[in-house]
Amino acid sequence: MMAMLVAEARADEGMWLFNDPPVEQVLQRHGFRIEAGWLDHLRESSVRFSTGGSGSFVSSRGLILTNHHVGAGIIDSLSREGRDLMQDGFLARTPADELPCGDLELNVLESIRDVTAEVEAAVAGEMDDQAAMMARRAVIAGLERVDEAESARRVREVVTLHRGAAYHLYEYRRFTDVRLVFAPERQIAAFGGDPDNFEFPRYCLDGCFFRAYEGGRPASVGHFLRWADEPVEEGELVFTSGHPGRTSRALTHAQVRAMRDTWLPFDLEALHRREVALGTWSERDPENRRRARGALVGTQNGRKARGGMLGRLLDPSFIDRHGREEAEFRARLRERGSHAAAESAFAEIEAVVGRQQADGFRGALLGGMRAFDSRLFGMAWTLVTVATERELPDEERKDGFRDADRVSLELDLFSEDPIYRDVERARLADSLTFLCVKVGAEDATVVRILGGKSPQDRARELVDGCGLDSLELRRALYEGGQAAIEASEDPMIVLARGIEEEVRSLQERWERDEEVLAQCQAKIVRARFDLAEGVVYPDATFSLRLSVGKVRGVEESGVPFRTTYAGLFGRNERMGGAAPFDLSARWLEAAPRVDPSVPLNFVSTNDITGGNSGSPVVDRQGRLVGLVFDGNLDSLGNDVRYDEARARAVSVCALGIVEALRSVYAAEELLEEIGR
Amino acid sequence: MMAMLVAEARADEGMWLFNDPPVEQVLQRHGFRIEAGWLDHLRESSVRFSTGGSGSFVSSRGLILTNHHVGAGIIDSLSREGRDLMQDGFLARTPADELPCGDLELNVLESIRDVTAEVEAAVAGEMDDQAAMMARRAVIAGLERVDEAESARRVREVVTLHRGAAYHLYEYRRFTDVRLVFAPERQIAAFGGDPDNFEFPRYCLDGCFFRAYEGGRPASVGHFLRWADEPVEEGELVFTSGHPGRTSRALTHAQVRAMRDTWLPFDLEALHRREVALGTWSERDPENRRRARGALVGTQNGRKARGGMLGRLLDPSFIDRHGREEAEFRARLRERGSHAAAESAFAEIEAVVGRQQADGFRGALLGGMRAFDSRLFGMAWTLVTVATERELPDEERKDGFRDADRVSLELDLFSEDPIYRDVERARLADSLTFLCVKVGAEDATVVRILGGKSPQDRARELVDGCGLDSLELRRALYEGGQAAIEASEDPMIVLARGIEEEVRSLQERWERDEEVLAQCQAKIVRARFDLAEGVVYPDATFSLRLSVGKVRGVEESGVPFRTTYAGLFGRNERMGGAAPFDLSARWLEAAPRVDPSVPLNFVSTNDITGGNSGSPVVDRQGRLVGLVFDGNLDSLGNDVRYDEARARAVSVCALGIVEALRSVYAAEELLEEIGR
Repeated sequence: MMAMLVAEARADEGMWLFNDPPVEQVLQRHGFRIEAGWLDHLRESSVRFSTGGSGSFVSSRGLILTNHHVGAGIIDSLSREGRDLMQDGFLARTPADELPCGDLELNVLESIRDVTAEVEAAVAGEMDDQAAMMARRAVIAGLERVDEAESARRVREVVTLHRGAAYHLYEYRRFTDVRLVFAPERQIAAFGGDPDNFEFPRYCLDGCFFRAYEGGRPASVGHFLRWADEPVEEGELVFTSGHPGRTSRALTHAQVRAMRDTWLPFDLEALHRREVALGTWSERDPENRRRARGALVGTQNGRKARGGMLGRLLDPSFIDRHGREEAEFRARLRERGSHAAAESAFAEIEAVVGRQQADGFRGALLGGMRAFDSRLFGMAWTLVTVATERELPDEERKDGFRDADRVSLELDLFSEDPIYRDVERARLADSLTFLCVKVGAEDATVVRILGGKSPQDRARELVDGCGLDSLELRRALYEGGQAAIEASEDPMIVLARGIEEEVRSLQERWERDEEVLAQCQAKIVRARFDLAEGVVYPDATFSLRLSVGKVRGVEESGVPFRTTYAGLFGRNERMGGAAPFDLSARWLEAAPRVDPSVPLNFVSTNDITGGNSGSPVVDRQGRLVGLVFDGNLDSLGNDVRYDEARARAVSVCALGIVEALRSVYAAEELLEEIGR
Repeated sequence: MMAMLVAEARADEGMWLFNDPPVEQVLQRHGFRIEAGWLDHLRESSVRFSTGGSGSFVSSRGLILTNHHVGAGIIDSLSREGRDLMQDGFLARTPADELPCGDLELNVLESIRDVTAEVEAAVAGEMDDQAAMMARRAVIAGLERVDEAESARRVREVVTLHRGAAYHLYEYRRFTDVRLVFAPERQIAAFGGDPDNFEFPRYCLDGCFFRAYEGGRPASVGHFLRWADEPVEEGELVFTSGHPGRTSRALTHAQVRAMRDTWLPFDLEALHRREVALGTWSERDPENRRRARGALVGTQNGRKARGGMLGRLLDPSFIDRHGREEAEFRARLRERGSHAAAESAFAEIEAVVGRQQADGFRGALLGGMRAFDSRLFGMAWTLVTVATERELPDEERKDGFRDADRVSLELDLFSEDPIYRDVERARLADSLTFLCVKVGAEDATVVRILGGKSPQDRARELVDGCGLDSLELRRALYEGGQAAIEASEDPMIVLARGIEEEVRSLQERWERDEEVLAQCQAKIVRARFDLAEGVVYPDATFSLRLSVGKVRGVEESGVPFRTTYAGLFGRNERMGGAAPFDLSARWLEAAPRVDPSVPLNFVSTNDITGGNSGSPVVDRQGRLVGLVFDGNLDSLGNDVRYDEARARAVSVCALGIVEALRSVYAAEELLEEIGR
């Protein structure tokens, strides 16, 4: 029924729903039958990270494998001046040594139910868009509700699929007590740094282990992945199970052009500016470098990803094909003469997109609050919003502020991650400057935000005067509700309150636009279903998806299908050991013991995107053969359009991890637990 | 007569003309009488670098002291893979070892003559702006003409002062045979790198020595500066003599707001993008780093300078004061009732500025050719333009393409500096992407430039197919004129020819605008003269200027007036010796021999800007006490408005250079030549 988008020729394309797997396609193309038990085992072994990544259980005692870069924010927050776990790595030899990870939350998918009919039943014929949106929201809030008693262990989410052509209810088991077990040094985890990011050949040990706890003890889990005995070979059929965050494949050509002309350039301008600001601030001092590292790496990653996407969209052959295919589809629609709603949806989308472009960046900077690159401001905004939202009935509240969101919200707000005022000042000064530049230094709201000061001076005043790094103050303001917020003289709270009305109105406008766009796209999707064009899966939604692919290099550019430890040491030597191609003292010392022939990284045709990081790669037997950690540069165009010829997923070889645990870290306890 | 802009209160403000020195002011304020002989000696000892900096003769045998960063482009171009003079430093112990510097040109100012009356006599009453501009140009071209026989040794330039309220003819002695004598390692020259750039305290040995040659032998010069015996002391009166490039002090408030809102943000967006592109490309390989270093350092410097200026302009107290002062002046004009031309000039400027802002960035990217960040393209453009301009009479040609410009143009075009195709590809791909982003991927000219390819692919095609790195091909196309250009199938030439018409029309429009703006400003300047407001110097024009200041820290932020070698070694140690706070092996080895009490850098209130780099700092006796190499961050606002309280010039102590030559480099020959 969900047939869409994938023409036969596009082969290994697809981020498949676990309740609608590509059984027929895989059987025909690869001679492999996906059995229900095989799929359930893979699903129950798969883990979603609240930090935006994926992972998998690899022992019955709740041991979880994911990417080092998925854990990096946590590992960073467990570090202090003088105890830099990113730099030094970490290994807990007993459960007692494992480090609790404050605000990290994990979810394991237990069931999926199609609730499209229930959601749509709420919409009566004569409702306008706004009323329909509110009606759907109310049903969804009801479906997502979880008893207070259960809420620590259970999450329900209604996932909007096909931009609103379908709604599925996902029920997860929730873990909020998670501890760090093992992390290698950042140099080997992200060997090659930004230059090698999104490239292949690669040589990264981008993996780390966490453990889920329940009731203060390692969680007992019924499903986990076992290590394969042999490394992957060229041409081998492999699957990934993970949580791709967002793709744009159902966007119309007008939307993709707006991405190319307006939104990607805006993102890139912000990212370039932030990368330079953080980079220069980091260079001033080694401790600065440690404090800003996470933000800097994230910024570089975003910049390279968006730069790669823009590069694809600026390739006329790529964008023209996108436009041509849409034009052909619209011609077929007109021929049929029976899809007026879909036909007019294209024009309606174009109108909304055009208006958004004309509106400029006020929405992103103030509504999306990108003008305030500060964790202290973020907390102030959360506190102000909680106070406002709490006065509304649950189903009328914003996403993220409903009863069902309470556990996650509190985990985040009461995080004890260190806050560094110097980083805060540097980031906020830069983002306020960006606000002036894009919205205008004489704009009334901007003038009010700056309060007669330069961005630098205002950032210093706000950050130095703010007391929200105190957990007690945050708790008091959270418990105290609207009265406490109104009484607060904390400058960040005063600022957040002062712009609340404008920010909310920008956010509401954005939400209304998104709803109109989604409903238009849903009409187009339904028309595609009716025309029975292509096959089968919705755009990514940070919910669990299966991808199918083959281990395969890139023939046209001579890229091999895998690398080995010999390659790692060779590259380190050729680059003269200089960062970001340096190895830690531990690795240099251990090098003679490492088997150079063991594979380290490999590429496959699996259709993945951001959020898939940390996804397990399994073989036909469902055994772990790898750990997705990246895509190549050409895979960045996958956001809009999958390209089997050149796009590749990049993974760590499962046996490469074993080799490191054995020969470098002597992590006997871990090896025993994972059965190697 | 040239009284303007400087109110009494603004103390050490002023970039003074050598033919109109501030004799009275200095006598009153500092009790020092500037004598004609003292001034002539300083002028004849001062040297202008064609690369955009300043310097001074320090021996009778043509030895010249300037900044390492003024020489950096040359030093870089003398390097090759495996011979990195930036990294290793350089010392010629005999003239035979001195390295010829291809395309470097030096000028020494010999005389100044006021030619305002001659230039204005060409403008008849009924001419429109365009005709008046052409008439002035023709007179200027005549005044600048130099006999073919003399042109290797002599340059004449008409300098437009006060935006056109005055024209002075500058006659220079020209040196085109210049050789490198000494350069320290880049680590010590630019110790602290980008983080310390525009900051104080500082610890940079930013100096190097060249030698001017004539007839294949060291040039004999009648004037040179002698080293002072004592270091500068706090409060000491000092002068600089150098070539400030450009200031914006005569701009109207509308123009300054346009800088803040449109042009500085545009520059910064381009610089942030370029810094990231060059930085990531550099990181891929040590040789990449060497090849891109000059461009990267220049980009970082530009970014920090413009970021600092924007920071000042976004300070409401700074910009509001600028606006208030202009409003008050306009009110006084209205009161007088006799300056209608000046009054309407403000409105006329505002109209032009508003239209330029509305036009966007096509002018800068195509007219200013910032879309083509490639030396190969630059050569192609020069060749195409030479062929076109040669068919015009001399006085109708563009700036830079008249007979008087031939020597400089050929020096530049036939430079044998290495061209690296990999750097070219990276830079061009980035700037073409920027063109797409700012002008639009569907713009007809952009589509034509990209020729159906992505910016990356097009950059590769253009650079790999271009043969202009061959000196013979450049000579053949230069000699061959329009016929050779039209017959060429070199892709860069074909591209340059294809956009020539549009580029020229954008350039002409820009020139017309600039002329209108200049003439409007000249009217305002004349009104200021009439009202006898303030005192005495025109905006910077990359011509020789005198500045007067005191050695002085910044009291309000506790910045000291100087640093010493002890501070250098201390900072190196505190930063763990990590780049950019590292020292070369030679320095680490020599450290115990260096006298830690010798001063290294100092700050003074001298009014300087970009182009002053390398200017000598002299005391009352005209003896060399320092070498300007930077301003502090607050000095960046000086572009619009001088600030004695916080803006400072940053210089290397002359005796700090002597200490390094003696204790680190054992440069006995140099020390003897400079009489130390």
